[in-house]
Amino acid sequence: MPETFEVGLLGHGTVGSAFAELLEERAPQIEAITGLRPRLGGVLTRSRGDFDEILATADLIVEVMGGVEPAREYVLRALRAGRHVVTANKQLLARHGEELWAAAREHQVQLRFEAAVGGVVPVIRVLQESLAAAHIDRVTGIVNGTTNFILSEMARTGQTFQEALAEAQRLGYAEADPTEDVNGADAAAKMAILARLAFDTPVHLDQVAYEGIEHITPDDLEYARDLGLGLKLIGTAERIDGGLSVRVHPAFLYAGHPLASVNGPFNAVTIESPAITEITLSGPGAGGPQTASAVLGDVISAMIPPASTPETSQRLEIVTDVESAFYLHLEVDDRPGVLARVADALGSQGVSVKSVVQKGLGEQARLVMVVHRVAESRFFAAVDEISRLDFMRARPRFIRVVEEEFGV
Amino acid sequence: MPETFEVGLLGHGTVGSAFAELLEERAPQIEAITGLRPRLGGVLTRSRGDFDEILATADLIVEVMGGVEPAREYVLRALRAGRHVVTANKQLLARHGEELWAAAREHQVQLRFEAAVGGVVPVIRVLQESLAAAHIDRVTGIVNGTTNFILSEMARTGQTFQEALAEAQRLGYAEADPTEDVNGADAAAKMAILARLAFDTPVHLDQVAYEGIEHITPDDLEYARDLGLGLKLIGTAERIDGGLSVRVHPAFLYAGHPLASVNGPFNAVTIESPAITEITLSGPGAGGPQTASAVLGDVISAMIPPASTPETSQRLEIVTDVESAFYLHLEVDDRPGVLARVADALGSQGVSVKSVVQKGLGEQARLVMVVHRVAESRFFAAVDEISRLDFMRARPRFIRVVEEEFGV
Repeated sequence: MPETFEVGLLGHGTVGSAFAELLEERAPQIEAITGLRPRLGGVLTRSRGDFDEILATADLIVEVMGGVEPAREYVLRALRAGRHVVTANKQLLARHGEELWAAAREHQVQLRFEAAVGGVVPVIRVLQESLAAAHIDRVTGIVNGTTNFILSEMARTGQTFQEALAEAQRLGYAEADPTEDVNGADAAAKMAILARLAFDTPVHLDQVAYEGIEHITPDDLEYARDLGLGLKLIGTAERIDGGLSVRVHPAFLYAGHPLASVNGPFNAVTIESPAITEITLSGPGAGGPQTASAVLGDVISAMIPPASTPETSQRLEIVTDVESAFYLHLEVDDRPGVLARVADALGSQGVSVKSVVQKGLGEQARLVMVVHRVAESRFFAAVDEISRLDFMRARPRFIRVVEEEFGV
Repeated sequence: MPETFEVGLLGHGTVGSAFAELLEERAPQIEAITGLRPRLGGVLTRSRGDFDEILATADLIVEVMGGVEPAREYVLRALRAGRHVVTANKQLLARHGEELWAAAREHQVQLRFEAAVGGVVPVIRVLQESLAAAHIDRVTGIVNGTTNFILSEMARTGQTFQEALAEAQRLGYAEADPTEDVNGADAAAKMAILARLAFDTPVHLDQVAYEGIEHITPDDLEYARDLGLGLKLIGTAERIDGGLSVRVHPAFLYAGHPLASVNGPFNAVTIESPAITEITLSGPGAGGPQTASAVLGDVISAMIPPASTPETSQRLEIVTDVESAFYLHLEVDDRPGVLARVADALGSQGVSVKSVVQKGLGEQARLVMVVHRVAESRFFAAVDEISRLDFMRARPRFIRVVEEEFGV
C-alpha cells in the first residue's frame, strides 16, 4: 500500500466540488506520478466541518472559499502548522500576500496560487519558474473573462453593454452581481499579484488604478472598427522611469497585438522581457472545472519535487491512418463532364465535397475544392483515381484542412 | 560568502555563448532567489576543453552542442555521475529520450529540456507540471519558426517558396542548409517529445509521419484566402480510438483557430483536455538569446525546490501618471471653427492628433479622433478644457489605445 496524502478542502461551491470530483477521478494517475495516494480529508463549508479537525490530519490545505476573512486566518494557521496551502483566492493575495508568503517561507512550506489568476492559463508558474531570473519590462493581460465576453459580443452584434451583460449572465459567463467583474476590481486584484511576481516588489490592490467597461457604447466599437482597432479590458504592469505602474482600463489594440485576437470568455497574458522578446499564454477564463484543474496542478506540484520524467505507464498504439479534411487543387481540360467525373471518383471512396471554386483559364480550368473529413487512405485512393483521368493536365495537389474552431 | 553552484557548459555556439553571457548578467538575481552563487565552470567546444575535467567539478551540465553523438554519451555520463542536466537537444531526446530519462530517475537527478521545444514558450513545464495529471486529448503546434515565417511571407507578399526562403535566410530566420526545417523533420522531433509527455507513452522520432512545405505554391495561399483559410505547418499529437497519432504536415486553419493568428517566426502550442478546454502558449521561435533564456530557467529550477515566493528584494515606486494614446469621441454643434478650437485645446497641452473622423448628423456633428501618446494628466487637462467649450453637446468620451504591434 502506498502512503496516502491527505488534502483538506476549505469551500465546497462550484470550484470546491469540481476539485473534489477531479481529485478522485485522477487519483490513480497522481499516484503513478508521485508515489503517493491522494485522499480527500475533511471538507469545510458554511454549515459543516471543523477547521481544526481538518487541519489535524491534512498534509495540504486547499482554500477555495473566497473572501478575505476567515480565509486569511485559516491559510495563516495552516502555513504556521507546517502544511502546504493551495489557494484560488485573488482578493486575499492582492491584500495580504506579503504576510502569507512570509509565513510560508518561515515555516518552509509551499503556498501555491495558480488558480488565482488567468483561470487555467499557467501564468503564475511561468513567472515564478520559467522566468524566475528574467528582467521583465511589462506584463499585459486580459484577466477577466466576463468583460472580454461582453466586449466581444458588443463588437460582434452591435449590442449595448446592458444587452451583452444580460447575454453573459444567461450563458453563465457573468454572475448575478457582476459588479467586481465589470468595474475592473477583479482584474485589478489579479494584476497586483502578477506585478508582485514579475517585478519583485510589493504591490497592494490599493495601488492599482482601475476603470471598468460600464460606459462603453456600441458607437465606440463601431468607430474602432473604422480605425482598425479592437477593444479589450487590459491590465498593464510595466516599468516606467525606474518605477512601476499597475493599472486596468479599457483599451483599443491594433490587430497585430497578441491580445487583439483573444475573444469571448478567454484570458490571455503577454510577458515582455529583452531575453525572450515576448510570450503570450491564453485559455478559457475561470470556470469551475478549469479552476479545479489549476488547483489540482498545484496540489501535484506540492506533492513531488518536479522535473522528473516518470517512466511511461502505457504504450499507446501509434495510429497511421487518421481522418482529415482536405483542400484539393486540380488542373483540368475545360470541357463538359469533368466536374461530374471528379465527383464520381471522390464519391466512390466516400469523400464528400464541402465547397468548390472553378476558374476557366482558356482551354484549361482549375478546380479547387475543400472536402469533409475522411480517412486519409480513402482520400488518397480517390486522388489516385482522379490522377489517372484523361482530362488531368497536372498531378493533383492537396493540403490538409483543420476544421475545428475555438473560442466563441 | 554563499555557496557556489558550478555549471559546466557543453557547446559554445550561438546558444552556448548567449547562455554564458546571460548567466553572468543574471547571477545576482539568481543568488537572491536560490541562495547559491552560480558560476560558469568548464566549457567544451570542438577545439578545446575536456569533458571529464568539466564533469569533475560541475553541479549541473548544460548541453547545447547539438547532434546525437557525442551529446548522448556526455549526457548519460553526467546523469550517471549524479549531475543534473539541462539540454536543448531535440534530436537527442526524440531518439534516445527513454534511455536518458531512465538514467535520470535511476540516479535521482533532474534532466530538464524546456529549450528543446517551442523556443521560449514554456510548453514542457506546462505539460510536466501544470497538466501533470490532466487527461490530454490533443496537442497541436506550430513548432518551427522558419517554416511559419516562410508561409507568412508567402501569404503576405505572394512570393514563391524559394523567394520567401531566401528572405528568411537574409533575415537570419533560416539556416544556410534549411533542409531539416523546411521538410518537417525538425518539427517532427519536437512533436515526438511533446507526445511523450502529453500521452505518457514512448514515442520515437521514427513513429512521426511528416511532410514539409517545399511544395506549397502562391496559388494555394491565394485560393485559401478565397476560402477563408490560413496555411501553417502544423504538428499534431492526438488520441484516436485508444491509440495515438503523431504527425506534421501543412494544414489550412479557419480564422477562429488559436494558431491561425500566429504569424512570422513564432511558435505556438495548443493543448486540449476536457478539464481545461484548451490553452495556447505562443512566443518567438528559438533564437540564441531566447533559447539561452529557456536554458537558464531550467538551471534555476534545478537549483531550488520551486514555488517559494521569495521575499521582495526591492520596492519600486508606484507610478500613477503614465503616457497613453487615446481615442476621443466628441458630440458637437455642426458649425465652423469647432475642429480648430478642439485642436487648440489639445495643442495647448501638447496633445497631438494622429487621425480624425468627422460625421455630420443634422445640426450636430461627431468628431472621433485618435491622439498620440502623451502624459495622461495632460490629456485629461485638455479634455477638461474641451468639455467647457460652448459647442459641446455631451461630455467628451475617451478610451486608451495601445499602440504597440507585435510579431512581424
